[in-house]
Amino acid sequence: MLKQEVRDMLVSIVGDDNLRDSQQDLIAYSYDATPNYQALPDAVIKPRNTKDVSEIVKVCNEYKIPIVPRGNATNLCAGTTPLEGGIVMIFTHMNQILELDEENLTVTVQPGIITLNMIEAVEAKGLFYPPDPSSMKISTIGGNINECSGGLRGLKYGVTRDYVIGLEFVMPNGDIVRTGGKLAKDVAGYDLTRLMVGSEGTLGIITEATLKLIPKPESKKTMLAMYNSLEAAGKTVSAIIANKIIPTTLEFLDQPTIQVVEDFAKIGLPTEVGAILLIEQDGPLEVVERDSNKIAEICEEGGAISVKIAETPEEGEALTTARRAALSALARLKPTTILEDATVPRSKIAEMVRAIEEIAERNNVRICTFGHAGDGNLHPTCMTDARDKEEMERVEKAFEEVFEKAIELGGTITGEHGVGVMKSPYLAWKIGETGVNAMLAIKQSFDPNNIMNPGKMFAKESRKRVVVQK
Amino acid sequence: MLKQEVRDMLVSIVGDDNLRDSQQDLIAYSYDATPNYQALPDAVIKPRNTKDVSEIVKVCNEYKIPIVPRGNATNLCAGTTPLEGGIVMIFTHMNQILELDEENLTVTVQPGIITLNMIEAVEAKGLFYPPDPSSMKISTIGGNINECSGGLRGLKYGVTRDYVIGLEFVMPNGDIVRTGGKLAKDVAGYDLTRLMVGSEGTLGIITEATLKLIPKPESKKTMLAMYNSLEAAGKTVSAIIANKIIPTTLEFLDQPTIQVVEDFAKIGLPTEVGAILLIEQDGPLEVVERDSNKIAEICEEGGAISVKIAETPEEGEALTTARRAALSALARLKPTTILEDATVPRSKIAEMVRAIEEIAERNNVRICTFGHAGDGNLHPTCMTDARDKEEMERVEKAFEEVFEKAIELGGTITGEHGVGVMKSPYLAWKIGETGVNAMLAIKQSFDPNNIMNPGKMFAKESRKRVVVQK
Repeated sequence: MLKQEVRDMLVSIVGDDNLRDSQQDLIAYSYDATPNYQALPDAVIKPRNTKDVSEIVKVCNEYKIPIVPRGNATNLCAGTTPLEGGIVMIFTHMNQILELDEENLTVTVQPGIITLNMIEAVEAKGLFYPPDPSSMKISTIGGNINECSGGLRGLKYGVTRDYVIGLEFVMPNGDIVRTGGKLAKDVAGYDLTRLMVGSEGTLGIITEATLKLIPKPESKKTMLAMYNSLEAAGKTVSAIIANKIIPTTLEFLDQPTIQVVEDFAKIGLPTEVGAILLIEQDGPLEVVERDSNKIAEICEEGGAISVKIAETPEEGEALTTARRAALSALARLKPTTILEDATVPRSKIAEMVRAIEEIAERNNVRICTFGHAGDGNLHPTCMTDARDKEEMERVEKAFEEVFEKAIELGGTITGEHGVGVMKSPYLAWKIGETGVNAMLAIKQSFDPNNIMNPGKMFAKESRKRVVVQK
Repeated sequence: MLKQEVRDMLVSIVGDDNLRDSQQDLIAYSYDATPNYQALPDAVIKPRNTKDVSEIVKVCNEYKIPIVPRGNATNLCAGTTPLEGGIVMIFTHMNQILELDEENLTVTVQPGIITLNMIEAVEAKGLFYPPDPSSMKISTIGGNINECSGGLRGLKYGVTRDYVIGLEFVMPNGDIVRTGGKLAKDVAGYDLTRLMVGSEGTLGIITEATLKLIPKPESKKTMLAMYNSLEAAGKTVSAIIANKIIPTTLEFLDQPTIQVVEDFAKIGLPTEVGAILLIEQDGPLEVVERDSNKIAEICEEGGAISVKIAETPEEGEALTTARRAALSALARLKPTTILEDATVPRSKIAEMVRAIEEIAERNNVRICTFGHAGDGNLHPTCMTDARDKEEMERVEKAFEEVFEKAIELGGTITGEHGVGVMKSPYLAWKIGETGVNAMLAIKQSFDPNNIMNPGKMFAKESRKRVVVQK
């Protein structure tokens, strides 16, 4: 519970309505989309503007009260659970599009806007914001920036980091900093903009963002290819790229995922196939046409059992059902679903998926794998039960081995979900002790009192398992 | 001069041949491409590998000896002059392509490789590294990364930052850190990769980089449009973008520049025109064709006096002569040429160029402006004489006013040249005192002894002129 003195100061900043600390409020903000990390905050606060944020932060910095900035908490790394109590800051009052600038191709927004709402406003003007995290119907742009969210279009268009060109944020001492702007080029000092992107709320609070837009692609074509083996599908992924084609989307489902999706969605998938690729290309009509035909050819040469190209947008939508249904289908099997995002160079996809299958078997846990084949970003997903302590230990061990294998193949522990609490013990595996030290130096210099989202990114104890260091 | 003890330690690391401190060596490394900042180092050192770099840095950190990492010193911000003495580190022994990976579309290089050499090796495989700083025939990739270099293709393809996906670097304490990899997605901790890009050698020494490549565009088309007025040219720039076309290159020359270029190159430019736009589009043949015709139409609708589309690549080359000759033509007029890179949102180009003309007139200095209209990155270039102290004061004042105007229009003090010494007094104008404090916090946490390129980026004294803070 907050001291009365502190509570009074916070209320005097935001008003009585915007500080909540009833038991039901505290419970509502005690968890995010990650299983097993629930913790109660001391209060929930709703700033109305940047000045409010700055004043709140100053109070919290003086009294060393943790602040957890939170969008809609769809993250999968336990990035927004208030593990050390303190206040959860939410941005329901700061959810506006401030400016959509068609001449400079930018949109300036407040952090609380729901990503899809912004995307729809942008597309209504014939413009395009490419990052499309699967959570975008619910997640906020502030959350996306803090996690550097990816999505299905990352292969061709990149991730959130590639579209944030200006920020306003509040430092842990209450200072307000503005970086970048409506500028394609800006090298005035260190790149604070990208430092804040993906910093998971541990360095400050983002209060405004200017995002780069591009013209909306004229057309899109969707296709689905089925393979007997994962290896053949993996080789096709490499062959498409080797043919100098970069599709917008290049997704895959492994055999166990296909089985589960068909059981759930009954869309007529042949459950005996070894892998499915979902491929989309967008751009000018003639290029999309040409690329799609070439991709279909490459799929067939690569041993696809069948290749379907959608003739209409509706058919295209239908083809994406299998991929879209994957998480829902998997989630219904067991009480707890743990969705990971170990990532490898794209040439290592098949090898990685095979390794995951072996790891699952060896540890006697059930893992299905699907994800973004084109950028090597896999989603090995474990169906388990968090109440079964013995099984959870095996799950933890299996994921440890998955991360180790990813690193061994030149990959990373997280492609798009972030580190949070969940992957903090493994951070040094990817970045080394020297890398963690460099990050901690930044953290300590920005936030000496460790008020900003404490307990995230940096683990109290790292797993000391020895891994191959390049 | 280095203490004998330190000299001996450094020689024991790199060998006698790789430490130079004769007078002629010191003079050769006392300056870069920026006029007026010459200073002698105490020694020049050539590490052979990352281990050498780490050991050198440890010695320098212990004895508090400045280190200036230097590519081929083409930078225009006095970023690589050894202002506080110490050692200049050069990378002639670390200039190899380590791996060109066609499956993952990456190239891994050492910092000393000349950018154009790398680009040619990449293009020989049908791949493409888009950043093309005008210095690329001489500059190194290590230098490009440290300055976050831009170029003529920034509008469509972005800048160096957008292509660096993995780094190895040596921290000021000698620690070796590896970030990223052959990964399209990686969010394991803070974005140290982009923090190092553009850090101007003040945070550590880059010893290896993995760069993202894309397929080489199939075709390219070049055109030149002439206008009676700058404003009409500026409106055309906005109209092209508003038509959802993003050309690869969208350059402009103002009237004074055209005059000087024609005097020098005698290529038949009509010297009475108000502005010239040079436009290039690349991509699939049919798209380039369609876009070029549409762009020509937009130019004509926008009041172009003439529009020439090159029929052949050779004709295309010829059309680019005017733009390419700009700096050489300007540089021959007076003993000293100062090339700046104030940058504004693209919608403000015409307004900014007019303001520069007024500022030049008011301060009685000669400034010609050309640059990258598409991304708002201007190169106001002053022809002067560094020996004329009184004129230099007026030049300094004029550029001060140029920076102030750029900031007022939502722009920045530097789009692609970096801060270095030259623009360090103005850094706070762009990023505010709070932003400078945040950057200094990072600097001090990485480099408490301030050995890495001291005197750069952060000025001892800032210009206190009051500017509009958003």
